[in-house]
Amino acid sequence: MTMLTLKNYVGGEWFAATGGLETALSAITGEPVAQLGSQGVDFAAAVKYARTVGGPALRKMTFHERAAMLKALATAIIARKEELYALSAHTGATRIDGWIDIEGGSGTLSAYAARGKKELPDGVLLLDGPVEPLSKGGTFVGQHVFTSLQGVAVHINAFNFPVWGMLEKLAPTLLAGVPAIVKPASATAYVTEACFRIMLESGALPPGAVQLVTGSAGDLLDHLRTQDVVSFTGSAATAQKLQSHPVIARESVRFVAERDSLNATVLGPDAAPGTPEFDLFVKEVVREMTVKAGQKCTAIRRTFVPAAHMDAVQEAIVARLAKVKVGDPGVEGVTMGALVSERQVKDVRKAISELAQEARIVFGDPEKAPEGAPAKGFFMSPVLLRCDEPWKATVVHEREAFGPVSTLMPYQDLADAVKLCERGQGSLVMSLFTCDPAVATEVIVGAAAWHGRVLIVDRDCAKESTGHGSPLPGLVHGGPGRAGGGEELGGIRSVHHYMQRTALQGSPRMLSAIGQRWMPGAPVKDGVHPFRKTFGELALGDEVITAERTISLEDIEKFAHFTGDTFYAHMDEEAAKANPFFGGRVAHGYLILSFAAGLFVDPAPGPVLANFGLDELRFVKPAKPGDSIKVRLVAKQKKARNKEYGEVRWDALVTNQNGETVATYELLTMNAM
Amino acid sequence: MTMLTLKNYVGGEWFAATGGLETALSAITGEPVAQLGSQGVDFAAAVKYARTVGGPALRKMTFHERAAMLKALATAIIARKEELYALSAHTGATRIDGWIDIEGGSGTLSAYAARGKKELPDGVLLLDGPVEPLSKGGTFVGQHVFTSLQGVAVHINAFNFPVWGMLEKLAPTLLAGVPAIVKPASATAYVTEACFRIMLESGALPPGAVQLVTGSAGDLLDHLRTQDVVSFTGSAATAQKLQSHPVIARESVRFVAERDSLNATVLGPDAAPGTPEFDLFVKEVVREMTVKAGQKCTAIRRTFVPAAHMDAVQEAIVARLAKVKVGDPGVEGVTMGALVSERQVKDVRKAISELAQEARIVFGDPEKAPEGAPAKGFFMSPVLLRCDEPWKATVVHEREAFGPVSTLMPYQDLADAVKLCERGQGSLVMSLFTCDPAVATEVIVGAAAWHGRVLIVDRDCAKESTGHGSPLPGLVHGGPGRAGGGEELGGIRSVHHYMQRTALQGSPRMLSAIGQRWMPGAPVKDGVHPFRKTFGELALGDEVITAERTISLEDIEKFAHFTGDTFYAHMDEEAAKANPFFGGRVAHGYLILSFAAGLFVDPAPGPVLANFGLDELRFVKPAKPGDSIKVRLVAKQKKARNKEYGEVRWDALVTNQNGETVATYELLTMNAM
Repeated sequence: MTMLTLKNYVGGEWFAATGGLETALSAITGEPVAQLGSQGVDFAAAVKYARTVGGPALRKMTFHERAAMLKALATAIIARKEELYALSAHTGATRIDGWIDIEGGSGTLSAYAARGKKELPDGVLLLDGPVEPLSKGGTFVGQHVFTSLQGVAVHINAFNFPVWGMLEKLAPTLLAGVPAIVKPASATAYVTEACFRIMLESGALPPGAVQLVTGSAGDLLDHLRTQDVVSFTGSAATAQKLQSHPVIARESVRFVAERDSLNATVLGPDAAPGTPEFDLFVKEVVREMTVKAGQKCTAIRRTFVPAAHMDAVQEAIVARLAKVKVGDPGVEGVTMGALVSERQVKDVRKAISELAQEARIVFGDPEKAPEGAPAKGFFMSPVLLRCDEPWKATVVHEREAFGPVSTLMPYQDLADAVKLCERGQGSLVMSLFTCDPAVATEVIVGAAAWHGRVLIVDRDCAKESTGHGSPLPGLVHGGPGRAGGGEELGGIRSVHHYMQRTALQGSPRMLSAIGQRWMPGAPVKDGVHPFRKTFGELALGDEVITAERTISLEDIEKFAHFTGDTFYAHMDEEAAKANPFFGGRVAHGYLILSFAAGLFVDPAPGPVLANFGLDELRFVKPAKPGDSIKVRLVAKQKKARNKEYGEVRWDALVTNQNGETVATYELLTMNAM
Repeated sequence: MTMLTLKNYVGGEWFAATGGLETALSAITGEPVAQLGSQGVDFAAAVKYARTVGGPALRKMTFHERAAMLKALATAIIARKEELYALSAHTGATRIDGWIDIEGGSGTLSAYAARGKKELPDGVLLLDGPVEPLSKGGTFVGQHVFTSLQGVAVHINAFNFPVWGMLEKLAPTLLAGVPAIVKPASATAYVTEACFRIMLESGALPPGAVQLVTGSAGDLLDHLRTQDVVSFTGSAATAQKLQSHPVIARESVRFVAERDSLNATVLGPDAAPGTPEFDLFVKEVVREMTVKAGQKCTAIRRTFVPAAHMDAVQEAIVARLAKVKVGDPGVEGVTMGALVSERQVKDVRKAISELAQEARIVFGDPEKAPEGAPAKGFFMSPVLLRCDEPWKATVVHEREAFGPVSTLMPYQDLADAVKLCERGQGSLVMSLFTCDPAVATEVIVGAAAWHGRVLIVDRDCAKESTGHGSPLPGLVHGGPGRAGGGEELGGIRSVHHYMQRTALQGSPRMLSAIGQRWMPGAPVKDGVHPFRKTFGELALGDEVITAERTISLEDIEKFAHFTGDTFYAHMDEEAAKANPFFGGRVAHGYLILSFAAGLFVDPAPGPVLANFGLDELRFVKPAKPGDSIKVRLVAKQKKARNKEYGEVRWDALVTNQNGETVATYELLTMNAM
């Protein structure tokens, strides 16, 4: 292919570097693929453009509009995915590696689009938690809310997943209403730039929402302020350097890091040779060593097995590794591709030589080019090391060889395994292969605090398991300590990282109006039965108070015989008296609910199409024979579902003739527009 | 009083400094109150003691046991509160100032004790969010959990609230199961030390749970690692210094900071002179200037009012300030006490002289001792400044005068007010005085991201409002940017800061066993009807599948006429056909619920005492006349409430004759032990 010249996209325009270009080489052929640089980029202007153009544009959109934007981006990428696969091949990726990157990336956008639609409101302000009562009289209350940060997110990405790495950060950032400046790693920036172009050309993004810096980040960090975020993926050394930039502490810039990780896997003491978990373990270790040629921050670097099974495990892993075919992924039969660059090959070789001080190589020759692989590409055999005395070793727990490399080590008992995992001083993920819930519980209680994710594989889940190395949109990705202490993904959790949580205090009237959720104490409005109002006509606070209905003993008996619910508290005065809560016969809770519905339901066809559910029902005080109940319903919250109808959440309060609360719940109806 | 000699409590023993003592003076008399120091403290040993003794002891306790411990501490402090008030007087505090500190502090412990009991499980592992479906077949799922960090929390506190400042950090830390090393500010460490002694003597704390360093923190930070937390309150300069310590970035030590804050208040455009909000505003500004002699990180430093009302506001504030009586709080009629130290007086005077470059003093003389105040104490008049051109000013937005000082400034319109608030570059709290929800909404949407808390005062909430300056246990305390970017309090949110969130993945069987919450796909057990089992006998997964019951058209009509719920979808075939969800007459949702109860209820007295509620009911598929329903109930989660009974949450699934889901819900029962 002809060499590409990558540009930067800043201030709403493509900008060619004024000089100082570096060259990215094909991992397969060693030939130049692209040249890139950022000399001449005005970083101060880029930051200002994001803050003054991108931020305001995104903050004008509701969460649902931003979700639709993510969906449009995902669709645009999928429509042109083959362009990306073609470029991805030059990074040394197999088709499967590319699938993780490209389709995994657009899948992450889609997942956030779906969550945004389902879990977030069609507004710009996100309520966090329930109303906090702050006063006896109820005139002063609290409510936490999230609003968009008014700065820019700087995303600094790693080379290994040029598409997914960009999209997994963009999805929560854009959904939060925050513009981003994306800085990919040089070695694979040509894939990122291609994906970025596809997104721009989709027309789904408002101006200023995203910018791209293909070369060095220059003095970008100098321009960050209080409302900005840095989200970094890469080496611990670079992360420390960035985190120590004075602007971070001075301006309290949020700094999210995902860095080195000596991820461990543990073969459970119960998972002896011959068990399904043993075989699953061996397969997973090999898979993690070879997928993406081991260039994954989540790959298994430390492999812990019961001391008694060391030889059996080694033999099984080596047998599988021997079948791995390294080479040009374009060639049939090849199962593992290349490392991304010559530098990466050198780094991994150096790391292996350090590991080899404490461990011995039992499979693979790191110095020898794999047989049949193109001579000028950056290929390397998978390398398995074995360290029999992990407590005497240090490097194996601290040095990340970012390639197809893992070290096999023995443990004595489960407590020993937990402590050995800790030696990594914080990781993105650990896995455990066991069929025994007691083993799993002991490991989780002892070890979870050191790991961002823990995968437990047993025979039940193995077929559907997504594996040790796969971050998923719904689960947090990131880990404590050496792994950087950050959190990405995890569904809406990661959207919060780009928003500010604020505690609001005031009267129910004020906080209901701001949060668009009615709360007790806020104004109500009587008049037309609110069930007669369309979704659009209905206002929060619209209320109906029903007539009273007296519950007789006959009602209770009739209900009992009709439904079959002849629980003694309803039927037997003596027995009911002995019950600590009732002190005599009481009406069924479901009778109260049913009578309540009879009181508020409006029979004729109208805008209320269905009562589709009910939340947080609590029976507060029993209703005794002779008690009279009535219901107050207030429109609490509205959420459009589509163009035909929307959900309405009603606050329901059932009281008795003394004004005491009998039951409270939230009623859910589907209302026509 | 005789001068106290404070000790350090480290490694489970009181330790006297080996030299290098500093002296704290009484703010009222200027006489020495205490000497203190930490020379000779082995900080490495203290950290190790916390990690190896305190952490394991706390992690063995359940959340409920830790909550009971907090309650015992609160009770012990209240029983001996007068000892603390006596010492507190030397800090310059009035009785009200002392009340905020001492009773506010123990109240925070009590609040966390109550929340821990109510909102956390009686175990050591906290589930976070629902089960995440990760596979089509449901054999592979996710669940987020929180577990205790396995390190130590270092609490570095400010001088102004020597009791509350310690307790508001200890409450969430200890509830999370993490030991702490407390480092109070020297000037008021004698109050902290006295409270610390009371807590130790209560016997409620396990060994190693808390340690105290009264003098300098020495090389404490050098010994921190991956699982540790630093929680700092104080100046931005010190915070930046600490945050830049290499251990923070290297080990990803969590760093929570609460530092400078130029808190603003805004008089709404509607709150003209003569409105209740105007009067409330004036009163609050004066209160915030004088309570604790303005030495509160949350005090109002910037007072923004509509340009037209500048003079009226100034006049009203000055009139109230003129009534403030500064002096020894022990003397009748005194309403404002002293600053904490001579250094503080000097600092505040220096800050005022800087502010006076941009603003003019309209009340108070910072250089003159207030009339009638003890000559050797650290007294100062409240000082109001006025700056008529806030957009030309810088210092007023950036320099925190940590004393009885505020600057009055005009704004042009609401957008201008929002932008002027931003000039503080992040604050702990802002307040707004308005009666108009539209004004409040505009301010929140525009400004919330810059503030950790926003108080909106109107005539409805004023009487019960806790005021601009009061952090509350249930609301987050902390703010972005200049305020440090940290978060404290906010109920259980702050407990999370001392725990690690981990995503677990595996089979439903494994994750149910670990999290002690049954989920679909996990094993179930039939046999004795689970309603026949006591709370103790009942195991998660215990199941009952009921017989079937056919719903006839007669049932529907009978139910309709009995309950009064004659909604057309149940009664009128033609009309029901036109409904987009039903396509014909269907049974009432409440009929389904009632028949379901009739199917699973066990009539005779037994361990199930009551069905006290129901959560997340969704009607999934309508039941038509002739459909048969049955119910599957599975014990999902248990929570002991006291020694007599506990709550059981049941997974309820109603299906029809085709095995299709008709309704799902969670049933709540109270079961005898």
